[in-house]
Amino acid sequence: MEQAAKITPRLQINLERLKDTLLELSRIGFNEHDKGVYRIGFSEADMSARRWLMDLLEREDFHPRMDGAGNVYGCLHESDKPTVTIGSHLDTVPAGGMFDGALGVVAALEVLRVCREAGITLNWPVELLATSEEEGRYGGMLGAQAIAGVLTPGVILNMHDADDKLLADAMTAAGLEPLGALDARRTPESMRAFLELHIEQGPVLERIGKSIGVVDGISGVYKWIVRLIGKADHAGTAPMNMRSDAFMGLADFAHEIPRIIDENGTDRSRLTVGKVDLKPGSPHTIPGEAVFTLVGRDSDEHAMQELCNACRKSLSAIARRHNLKFEYEQISWLSPMSCDLSVVELLEEHAAALGYSFERMPSGAGHDTQFLSEITRAGLIFVPSVGGVSHSPDEWTHWTDVEIGANLLLSATVALATEKDLSRNSE
Amino acid sequence: MEQAAKITPRLQINLERLKDTLLELSRIGFNEHDKGVYRIGFSEADMSARRWLMDLLEREDFHPRMDGAGNVYGCLHESDKPTVTIGSHLDTVPAGGMFDGALGVVAALEVLRVCREAGITLNWPVELLATSEEEGRYGGMLGAQAIAGVLTPGVILNMHDADDKLLADAMTAAGLEPLGALDARRTPESMRAFLELHIEQGPVLERIGKSIGVVDGISGVYKWIVRLIGKADHAGTAPMNMRSDAFMGLADFAHEIPRIIDENGTDRSRLTVGKVDLKPGSPHTIPGEAVFTLVGRDSDEHAMQELCNACRKSLSAIARRHNLKFEYEQISWLSPMSCDLSVVELLEEHAAALGYSFERMPSGAGHDTQFLSEITRAGLIFVPSVGGVSHSPDEWTHWTDVEIGANLLLSATVALATEKDLSRNSE
Repeated sequence: MEQAAKITPRLQINLERLKDTLLELSRIGFNEHDKGVYRIGFSEADMSARRWLMDLLEREDFHPRMDGAGNVYGCLHESDKPTVTIGSHLDTVPAGGMFDGALGVVAALEVLRVCREAGITLNWPVELLATSEEEGRYGGMLGAQAIAGVLTPGVILNMHDADDKLLADAMTAAGLEPLGALDARRTPESMRAFLELHIEQGPVLERIGKSIGVVDGISGVYKWIVRLIGKADHAGTAPMNMRSDAFMGLADFAHEIPRIIDENGTDRSRLTVGKVDLKPGSPHTIPGEAVFTLVGRDSDEHAMQELCNACRKSLSAIARRHNLKFEYEQISWLSPMSCDLSVVELLEEHAAALGYSFERMPSGAGHDTQFLSEITRAGLIFVPSVGGVSHSPDEWTHWTDVEIGANLLLSATVALATEKDLSRNSE
Repeated sequence: MEQAAKITPRLQINLERLKDTLLELSRIGFNEHDKGVYRIGFSEADMSARRWLMDLLEREDFHPRMDGAGNVYGCLHESDKPTVTIGSHLDTVPAGGMFDGALGVVAALEVLRVCREAGITLNWPVELLATSEEEGRYGGMLGAQAIAGVLTPGVILNMHDADDKLLADAMTAAGLEPLGALDARRTPESMRAFLELHIEQGPVLERIGKSIGVVDGISGVYKWIVRLIGKADHAGTAPMNMRSDAFMGLADFAHEIPRIIDENGTDRSRLTVGKVDLKPGSPHTIPGEAVFTLVGRDSDEHAMQELCNACRKSLSAIARRHNLKFEYEQISWLSPMSCDLSVVELLEEHAAALGYSFERMPSGAGHDTQFLSEITRAGLIFVPSVGGVSHSPDEWTHWTDVEIGANLLLSATVALATEKDLSRNSE
C-alpha cells in the first residue's frame, strides 16, 4: 500500500477562497437576461476569462503562459521536469452554468495555492491547465486535441461552426495564429499524469447519494440516421390494416428499446431517439416517412456492436411487419476510452482514506481527459450535479460536494507529485 | 320492389364522351412541371373551369347558371319543381389529380346527355351541380355549406387560408360578391335528392376487388393536440431508468393504438399520429417534450367517445410510468353523418340489378354530400382509387370503373327522377 502512505489528509482546500474565485469567474460572460454564462470558445468573453486567469496567476506568482491553442497554464515553480497537470476547460456553452469546466480550473488553482501555503516538497511540478474550446462550437476539445497532438493544419483550417464561421477567423480575432495551435503539442515525456475535476452533468451521484464519481472510462457513442419509408395516406380513408405508417414503425421500435438493452446491452447502455421528422407531418395524413436519430452508447465496444446488431434486426422485422422500407446511415462511431486503471485506483484509495462516499462509473459525456489520456495517465473525478442538470443557468453543485471534490483532487495531485520512481507505468 | 321496377338497364353512359370531357377539364389548371392539377378554390384556374363548364352547358342547352357561392348549375329543362341534383366539386387541391371532384361533375353532365338522348320522361327535373371550394383552402365545402344554409356573414368574412388571405378577397377577385354566397341557399322543398359520384381516395375497394362503394355515412372525426412533458437530459449522462423521456412515452402510446382499437373501437375506427414535434429535438438530448396530433375517427359517435376515453387512460398510465406530465386539448369534434338509408338501399338495388360488385362502406373523408344531407336525401357512390392514391398527379381510376360508377349514377338518378309520389320521405 505504497499509495496509501502518500495520502496527506491534513491538507485541505480553502472553500471560501475557491468560492470567491469561482464566483468571480462566473461573472465573465454572465448574461443578465437569462442568467446564463456565455463564454463560447474564442469569443470575447472566453478570451477575457483567459486574460483574467493569467492576471490572477501572475499576481499569485504561478507563472502564467498561454500556448498557441489558447490553453492557459500556470505552475508552482517553473521546471523542465515532467508535470502533474490538473485542470479543465474555461469555455462554456451558450447560457451555460458556472461549474461546467470552470470548477476544474478553479479547483486546480486552489490546489496550487494550498501546495504553496503548505510548503510541501514535491518531486514533480504541479501544473494548472485551462483548456480551450472544449464545448464544441467548432468541434470540441480543441485545446486538449492540440496538446495530444492529434490536429493537423487541414483540420484546423477547415473547422467551422454551425453557421459556417471558421475557427481560424475566431482565433485570429482573438489574437491567436490558427496554426500556432500545432505548437501546443505536449510529448508523453513532458507529463506524468493528468487529473480533471468536473461536475457529473447527470443524475447518478445525486440519486445514489454519493459525493464522488471515479470515472473509469468515457462511453463510446454511435449515431445513426434511420429512415423508415411507408406510404402517406389519408388518415380517414385508409383502414388500420391497410396502412404503411412509418411513424407506427418508429413507435414499435422505440417501444422495443428497453428489451434490446436488457437482452444485448449492459447497465451502461444508452439508446436515445432525440430527433424525429415525419413526412408530410400533417395531422390528417398517415406519415409516409419517418427520419430519426438513434444514438447508442456503452463503455464496452463489444456491447456497442451488440446493440447495433439488435437495433438492425428489430428495425428490419418491424419494417417487414408494417410494410416499410428501412434504411440507416451510421454517421459516427467513437470507441469507448478507458481511464488509466492505476489512477482510478489511486483516486478510490484517496477517496476512501478521506472518508468520502464514491462510485466507480463511466462518463456518458466527452471530456478533455479523453485526449489527455492519449499522452499520459489520466483520471477524471465527478461531483454531483443537482437534478442532473447542466448546460443551463440551473446548473448547480452543492458547495459541500465542491469541497469534497477539490480535496480529493488535492490529495491525489500531491500523491502523484510526490511519487519517487521515474518510470511512468510501474509505481 | 317498387324500386327494382324503376331500374332502366338499357340506358348506358357514353364512356368515350365522358373521357373526352374529363380529359378536357383536366387540362384546366394543369401544371406541366409536376403534372398536377391546380384548381384551388376561387383561383383563376378554378374560375376558368367554371366558365368552361357554363360554356359547355350553354352549348349543349343545359341552362347554366352560377349562384352567389360560385356553384355552377345546369339542368335538362328549366322548371320550378323540386330537383334531383347530382354532381360534385370542380376545385382541386394543389397538385391534385384529374378525378377528385371532376369525375362527379362530368358524370352528372353525362347523365344529363344520356337522359336527353334517350328522351325519357322524368317526373322531376334532373340538375347538375358543380360546387365551389370543397377542398378547403378557406375551410372547405363552401358551396355545399352555402346551399345547406349554414353560412353567416361573419363566417364568410372571417374565412381565410393558411397565409391569412381572406376568402372575401379571393371571391371579389373572382368577380363574386362575398355575401352573395348567402343567396345560394336551397330550401329542402326545392330538392328531392342529391347523388354524388366520387373516387374512394382510399385502398378498400381495390383490395376487396369491388367496383362500387355505397357510402352509408361519413365518419366523425376528432383532433387532439397532446403534450407529454418530461425532462430534457444529456443522452449520455442520464441512465435509462432515470429518464423522463417524452418521446418514449409517445412511442409506448402509439404502440398501444392497435390494442385500444381492438378493445374499444370498431372495424371503422382510425387513430392516427400524423405530426410529432420533439423538444429540443437534438440527437444527443433526451426529448423533454413531445407534442403530437392524434386524429380519431369512427362512423359511430359512441365508439368515438370510447376511443377518447381509452386514449386518455392509456396516456395517463404511460405518463405516470415514464414520469411525464400529460396534457391534451381537443381541437375539434365532428359527429358522424349518416347517408339516407332509402338512398343507400336504392343504390345497392341498382348496383345488384346492373350486376356490379359493391360494398356498403363509410367514407373516412369529408364530402359535399354531408352538407347536402342536411336539406335532402343524399347518397354517395365510390369508385376504386388505384393504390388508394388521391390528392396527387398519381391519382387514377380505371375507365372500366368510371363507366360502372357513372352507369350506377345514371340508373339511380333516373329512378329518383321518375318517382311518382310527392312525399319526399315515403316512397
